Amino acid sequence: MAIVLGPNQYGKAENRLVTVSRNGSVHTIKDLTVSTSLRGDLADTHLTGDNAKVLATDTQKNTVYAFAKEAPVGEIEDFALRLGRHFVSSQEAITGARVLIDEHGWERIDGHDHSFVRGSDEKRTTAVTIDGEQAWVVSGVRDLVVLKSTGSEFHGYPKDPYTTLKETNDRILATSVTARWRYVGTDVDWAKSFTEIRSIMLKTFADKHSLSLQQTLYAMGEAVLNTRPEVAEVRLSMPNKHHFLVDLSPFGLENDNEVFYAADRPYGLIEGSVLRDDAPDAGQAWSTLPTF
Amino acid sequence: MAIVLGPNQYGKAENRLVTVSRNGSVHTIKDLTVSTSLRGDLADTHLTGDNAKVLATDTQKNTVYAFAKEAPVGEIEDFALRLGRHFVSSQEAITGARVLIDEHGWERIDGHDHSFVRGSDEKRTTAVTIDGEQAWVVSGVRDLVVLKSTGSEFHGYPKDPYTTLKETNDRILATSVTARWRYVGTDVDWAKSFTEIRSIMLKTFADKHSLSLQQTLYAMGEAVLNTRPEVAEVRLSMPNKHHFLVDLSPFGLENDNEVFYAADRPYGLIEGSVLRDDAPDAGQAWSTLPTF
Amino acid sequence: MAIVLGPNQYGKAENRLVTVSRNGSVHTIKDLTVSTSLRGDLADTHLTGDNAKVLATDTQKNTVYAFAKEAPVGEIEDFALRLGRHFVSSQEAITGARVLIDEHGWERIDGHDHSFVRGSDEKRTTAVTIDGEQAWVVSGVRDLVVLKSTGSEFHGYPKDPYTTLKETNDRILATSVTARWRYVGTDVDWAKSFTEIRSIMLKTFADKHSLSLQQTLYAMGEAVLNTRPEVAEVRLSMPNKHHFLVDLSPFGLENDNEVFYAADRPYGLIEGSVLRDDAPDAGQAWSTLPTF
Amino acid sequence: MAIVLGPNQYGKAENRLVTVSRNGSVHTIKDLTVSTSLRGDLADTHLTGDNAKVLATDTQKNTVYAFAKEAPVGEIEDFALRLGRHFVSSQEAITGARVLIDEHGWERIDGHDHSFVRGSDEKRTTAVTIDGEQAWVVSGVRDLVVLKSTGSEFHGYPKDPYTTLKETNDRILATSVTARWRYVGTDVDWAKSFTEIRSIMLKTFADKHSLSLQQTLYAMGEAVLNTRPEVAEVRLSMPNKHHFLVDLSPFGLENDNEVFYAADRPYGLIEGSVLRDDAPDAGQAWSTLPTF
Repeated sequence: MAIVLGPNQYGKAENRLVTVSRNGSVHTIKDLTVSTSLRGDLADTHLTGDNAKVLATDTQKNTVYAFAKEAPVGEIEDFALRLGRHFVSSQEAITGARVLIDEHGWERIDGHDHSFVRGSDEKRTTAVTIDGEQAWVVSGVRDLVVLKSTGSEFHGYPKDPYTTLKETNDRILATSVTARWRYVGTDVDWAKSFTEIRSIMLKTFADKHSLSLQQTLYAMGEAVLNTRPEVAEVRLSMPNKHHFLVDLSPFGLENDNEVFYAADRPYGLIEGSVLRDDAPDAGQAWSTLPTF
Repeated sequence: MAIVLGPNQYGKAENRLVTVSRNGSVHTIKDLTVSTSLRGDLADTHLTGDNAKVLATDTQKNTVYAFAKEAPVGEIEDFALRLGRHFVSSQEAITGARVLIDEHGWERIDGHDHSFVRGSDEKRTTAVTIDGEQAWVVSGVRDLVVLKSTGSEFHGYPKDPYTTLKETNDRILATSVTARWRYVGTDVDWAKSFTEIRSIMLKTFADKHSLSLQQTLYAMGEAVLNTRPEVAEVRLSMPNKHHFLVDLSPFGLENDNEVFYAADRPYGLIEGSVLRDDAPDAGQAWSTLPTF
Repeated sequence: MAIVLGPNQYGKAENRLVTVSRNGSVHTIKDLTVSTSLRGDLADTHLTGDNAKVLATDTQKNTVYAFAKEAPVGEIEDFALRLGRHFVSSQEAITGARVLIDEHGWERIDGHDHSFVRGSDEKRTTAVTIDGEQAWVVSGVRDLVVLKSTGSEFHGYPKDPYTTLKETNDRILATSVTARWRYVGTDVDWAKSFTEIRSIMLKTFADKHSLSLQQTLYAMGEAVLNTRPEVAEVRLSMPNKHHFLVDLSPFGLENDNEVFYAADRPYGLIEGSVLRDDAPDAGQAWSTLPTF
Repeated sequence: MAIVLGPNQYGKAENRLVTVSRNGSVHTIKDLTVSTSLRGDLADTHLTGDNAKVLATDTQKNTVYAFAKEAPVGEIEDFALRLGRHFVSSQEAITGARVLIDEHGWERIDGHDHSFVRGSDEKRTTAVTIDGEQAWVVSGVRDLVVLKSTGSEFHGYPKDPYTTLKETNDRILATSVTARWRYVGTDVDWAKSFTEIRSIMLKTFADKHSLSLQQTLYAMGEAVLNTRPEVAEVRLSMPNKHHFLVDLSPFGLENDNEVFYAADRPYGLIEGSVLRDDAPDAGQAWSTLPTF
């Protein structure tokens, strides 16, 4: 028996990058959180502390900032591909990279040319994985919080000895959507694709009469695949943010789905994937992402 | 020498209340976090554990939910006044109350009648203080994050032996505004007042060429007082969320205010108040709020 | 009517300072979060953006780090006094300062001379206020989380139409103590005083049979004042971190105070102060701290 | 082409469970956060909203609380196995389960029999995966924050055009350890194993002279495998919590590794696994855990 090094990666996490671009007096800003991780022939640093193949995480950070100047950042997918390919092509020992980028939203203040107000906490995300010449792009959205005040039911579930939940034909359904979708390739209009995927997911959440959060989840993923051929697979993680009907009967009041208590914990957690049956192999697309 | 009980209050904090109102099939939701605190003849519970005068915090919570059903919640200031006055008028031992409400924003999904997407993390706030027949209302906004990518300078400050900061004629100015304004009375169109105050503050932040964050802060408060006679005083707490220009010279690159590192800590913290010199006495309006 | 500048202060918040002291090969570390705020003749920067009297917050930060080298940091109260007095004495326009320090705990790993493991999230705190030649010290503790699994009752409270809570002779009592105590002067053995105050508060929490959290709070403050003559006043803020007995009767099980659900929100919030009736005037000791 | 449902699971996350056991007047408490997820024949609820096979997440929550009463909770691994096996064996459609438990630490106040003070934020963790008759146990620790004030170097790394980091023979090394170890089987003295693994990891962190955080990580995993035959594999995620030496030269001061700035973001992130080359197949042990 011997003890050996297994899978490993290292990098610089959560580089906060803000860029300003000028078109005359009209400014545009980008606000990103960038994390890079490298993989490769890294046994030496683990076994002996020899760092000859370890591009410092500080260097990775510098590269993020320098690349933001050397060419326009552009869409986060392009920026992540550019960074990941650079690390793999420029360092002989580095054979793979994973670049995560979150984009934070800002809105222009009332048409003003250089003043902005922070939008919602929602983030546009990408996770780009590079292995040698290959590249996989999984983009998505996080912390997209949605609620419907009716159009949601839950009943027909098994009753075991520990079941006390009452069936309902009308409840609040609320969730914070984490969605990730795997692109078939890398020749994509990233901005347009993101905008349309987000829009179809919101529309489906709103329109679909829900008999379970699972049904809503599946419908959202299916709607994306039905309309976006560039997407092979969608994975969704959707906490059921419970809004409990408050029992007002002790006070002689009826609560006709009007007054709710929004609970923090525990919460339901529904996770699922929807894919084309002829989707190309996922390769390493998901290899470092939370799975289920 | 004797040991005595000093100022005290007790209540239920962070009641999460969501209400749904229906106008036909069109729903409107309100999402509030409500905290109540009571004051009065409360020595017994402290000294002997006799709770005869302690309206339970659980009862306070129930009251919040029941009141949300008994009449429409309406504006947060009205709901807070209603709750505070109820506690003081219905419990003989209770002579004062403080009700804090944060309102969380939701936006309709694309015109849909019962589906919503969470807005920014910004909260509309109110802090209502009741003492017997008197009432004070301090409303505000929290976590209103704004940034301007130019139009901000900082220079002319003292140079002492510990000063290393370089003067600048052009920097990013970013802050998360916590504003609180004290109303002269309680006969106010709360919704209209809030909307216009928020709007004038944003406009002033955007338009005012800034030589210091203090100047911007004062201008924002002054603009509110110049346009809103119902407001006696404005208090602002504005962290300077530093965006540091990244030194790209080691890489042979010039950084012409294009690439920034957004720092978390430490941050500047600028706090100030702006008021009318003939403002009525503040009474207990600020008595339980953070002060400076 | 004119619009005027009211109370204001500015500074650098949350400077993260870690120092290493060596006694041969045995190291000692201090881990502090330091926030400084200055007050004084600061109208110009607010009204015109003239910063001639504004010692930059960046300079304040540098001063924190330089002072940590110029002499041993020592106890947080001494370090805060040293910083505050420096700003007030060295800058003509600055007449007052407020220095907040949180100290984070580390424990030595098993007697090792330079390796440490982070202790609990509890912080030792101080808030020092300087006004000209005067100084006030308010020290304390935050996030000291305690729980007793019996020895706590709650009953005898008023029953109004919104009361549903059941009386109990045995419940879990849990809270996260924020305590602040005002020292009579500044000639104090800070470390010893802190250690003994923390100890007497814990002992009182544990030993005192509780009929209400208010009674526990008062007893804790009283015990400090009874044993520590250097303290004039104690203020305590203690959330009632509810542990609800789970109703297991639907499953044919009795729950004899064995199984609890620990709730996040809402929570009771009990705040009170205990002082000597001959305590010296508080002056500005509490002027910028949360009050009730 | 058809659209199909891929991997999925659902459950109740973050059930906060506190139990009290009595041995005469001496109480022992357990404070757990329990998350359950189920897998199986769940296509119907996704495709049609038919919930006939969906054991409600509310029922899962009830089961957690009821099971805590039906038999002593015991070690978290045993409790997780008990819960997971129950769901799989009692629901025909449910073929797999994943149970995550975090245990939060409390210490007795000074020998008191029923009063406790919260320990560090560190959690003992387990992730139990059940598939039919099979079970895998991965236990660990999270938020175990450690620091060494010397005995850490970093040099010899590649210098590319973006490298500015200076080599060092003496730095602070600090990290927040997330460790997970896969057990060979389920017939383990869980408490003893946990205690000894934690202890050997701390000792190795302290004793090992570090040339890179990777070397420290590997040494920690190797030490566990060398001493604990019940463990097949260790996975570690260790952020490099940077403590930057403050440049005090502008103030005429030398900083001989005495004064540091503890940074929040970005941070290095080192992730790696150490395993026996004859370790049994991991099966589904890691299938729903973060990977790298």
